[in-house]
Amino acid sequence: MSSPRIAVTMGDPAGVGPEICLRMLAHEPITGSAIPIVFGSAAVLNRAASQLGLPFHAPILTRETWEQNYQAIDRPSVLDFDFPPLEQVVPGQMSPICGEAAYRYVTASIDAALAGQVEAVTTGPLNKEALYAAGHHFPGHTEIFAERMQAERSCMMLTSDLLTCSLATVHVGYLEAPRLLSIERICEVIELTAEAMRRMRGREPRLAVCGLNPHAGEHGLFGQREEERLIEPAILRMREQGYHLEGPLPADTAFLPDRRARTDAYICMYHDQGLIPLKTLAFDSAINTTLGLPVVRTSVDHGTAFDIAWQGTANPTSLLAAVRLAAVLCRPPAPLLA
Amino acid sequence: MSSPRIAVTMGDPAGVGPEICLRMLAHEPITGSAIPIVFGSAAVLNRAASQLGLPFHAPILTRETWEQNYQAIDRPSVLDFDFPPLEQVVPGQMSPICGEAAYRYVTASIDAALAGQVEAVTTGPLNKEALYAAGHHFPGHTEIFAERMQAERSCMMLTSDLLTCSLATVHVGYLEAPRLLSIERICEVIELTAEAMRRMRGREPRLAVCGLNPHAGEHGLFGQREEERLIEPAILRMREQGYHLEGPLPADTAFLPDRRARTDAYICMYHDQGLIPLKTLAFDSAINTTLGLPVVRTSVDHGTAFDIAWQGTANPTSLLAAVRLAAVLCRPPAPLLA
Repeated sequence: MSSPRIAVTMGDPAGVGPEICLRMLAHEPITGSAIPIVFGSAAVLNRAASQLGLPFHAPILTRETWEQNYQAIDRPSVLDFDFPPLEQVVPGQMSPICGEAAYRYVTASIDAALAGQVEAVTTGPLNKEALYAAGHHFPGHTEIFAERMQAERSCMMLTSDLLTCSLATVHVGYLEAPRLLSIERICEVIELTAEAMRRMRGREPRLAVCGLNPHAGEHGLFGQREEERLIEPAILRMREQGYHLEGPLPADTAFLPDRRARTDAYICMYHDQGLIPLKTLAFDSAINTTLGLPVVRTSVDHGTAFDIAWQGTANPTSLLAAVRLAAVLCRPPAPLLA
Repeated sequence: MSSPRIAVTMGDPAGVGPEICLRMLAHEPITGSAIPIVFGSAAVLNRAASQLGLPFHAPILTRETWEQNYQAIDRPSVLDFDFPPLEQVVPGQMSPICGEAAYRYVTASIDAALAGQVEAVTTGPLNKEALYAAGHHFPGHTEIFAERMQAERSCMMLTSDLLTCSLATVHVGYLEAPRLLSIERICEVIELTAEAMRRMRGREPRLAVCGLNPHAGEHGLFGQREEERLIEPAILRMREQGYHLEGPLPADTAFLPDRRARTDAYICMYHDQGLIPLKTLAFDSAINTTLGLPVVRTSVDHGTAFDIAWQGTANPTSLLAAVRLAAVLCRPPAPLLA
């Protein structure tokens, strides 16, 4: 099987995106598993390369060349959007024009994926404030993808060597989260997570489902029996289908080393239940992926980092890992519950 | 200043309490900072010592001797309750009689503290099921202390070398927690935590207050503005009084290493917000302390561990740390906001 072509969006030109893309393009081993195509600005990359003393030898494609020849691309390349105008990029500063640029790279990458020109998308960091200033009102990448792809179901999964967590609810208030939980939603997240983990592990994964309340409700002592009403029925239903599931677990002891060693992924009920342990343990190495979309999508798990942008110190580890994971998730699906 | 006398309850006789108490009594360095008095059963300790080959040379006091001579006790000792009957103790098994015994040691330790016979109490592990079976309906130690001491305000703080968290709400359901939050309650927890940390650090502590919603509400985008309505006003009020406070912080990035390095203690809004990072990072070394009581109270942060009880493998680290912390918290209070 040839390596998959993966659109890698350059992110906000004023952030750390350009320099981590340059480091990725120069990273030999990545070529073994994927062919990254940076969706961005060749002029911005050139300026960052010369300013920071980084190599930049990747082929640059115009959009016309890309449309005609994408199938022949067999090495890391840059698809040049010739935007934004170079003189309007102020490194480290939020601006509507850079927000607009980041938005264009992302939407083009989605369209390329839907058209089958790339097998997956890995997104570089964009700045929400810049996105809003450019008139695009999305809380983040996930929502841009979900809207443009009209995904009926999706879930956010964060993964690192130490821990993988999928979220049943994400960017909603603390009090709103339980209202969005249902047996169906929890089953859906279990299914999407198991499917992704099968590709990553090459076997049926062992999943752990967290409770909602302290001590997972302590047999109904705390909470409104969300564990008995929603979580346990979902676990039972999916176990009957052959899934390997533990839970509902008290969240405070769920992430202890012993348990982590025997758990491939956690199903978490709300944002901070999954992201607190993930960021606490794997603060700079996590990758964000949106499951359930028509195409594979992974993302760096850091922001534009304007405070250190264009200084040459940004770490490309998360981007490289995100590209590698995208390649893994492009594999043909493992047989169900093998 | 002489070392404080600290009542150390033996916990459930069928659990790991007896063996960790024996190891503590034999631990030379503890004597430098505290005089632990085990409130428990000399017969049970004797049997555990001979069964596990552990030394046991501490003086054994009857309750009468104790009442008359407690002021003269200058070395680690055992206060013998002559209960439960030895033949009714089945190691590793839950029983009402052992639940009753654990309850008696705790209530006696509280009374001893209130009477000024000991300066502090450190509690060994009890089993909630056994406690209930004995007719004592408390979710745990904290509630026994709060009721018996009629504490008007208190809060649970967990501490380890890596992380310290105080909880604004504890053993209530996920949905109930926000209803118990108020500006007053958050101020109270800040005050209690700062007071304890001053004794522990010998200086004014730097505290960080977590938000309730994901991303601390992201400027009102998520949630019901609990950050603006409750948490920020509490922070402002306490800052005006001179407290060193950061927040409200997004909880998922609050516990990253950089932030932890400059934070003495975190004020968390709900049980799992504090206990997930604490147990994930410091799963076997945390100590539980109840702040705001008329006497100092610390506790091991583990249970009776019936599965490994009376096998000689239980780790006394948490108990030793809890006794040492109790001694530290007995120090005269540091000047306010010095």
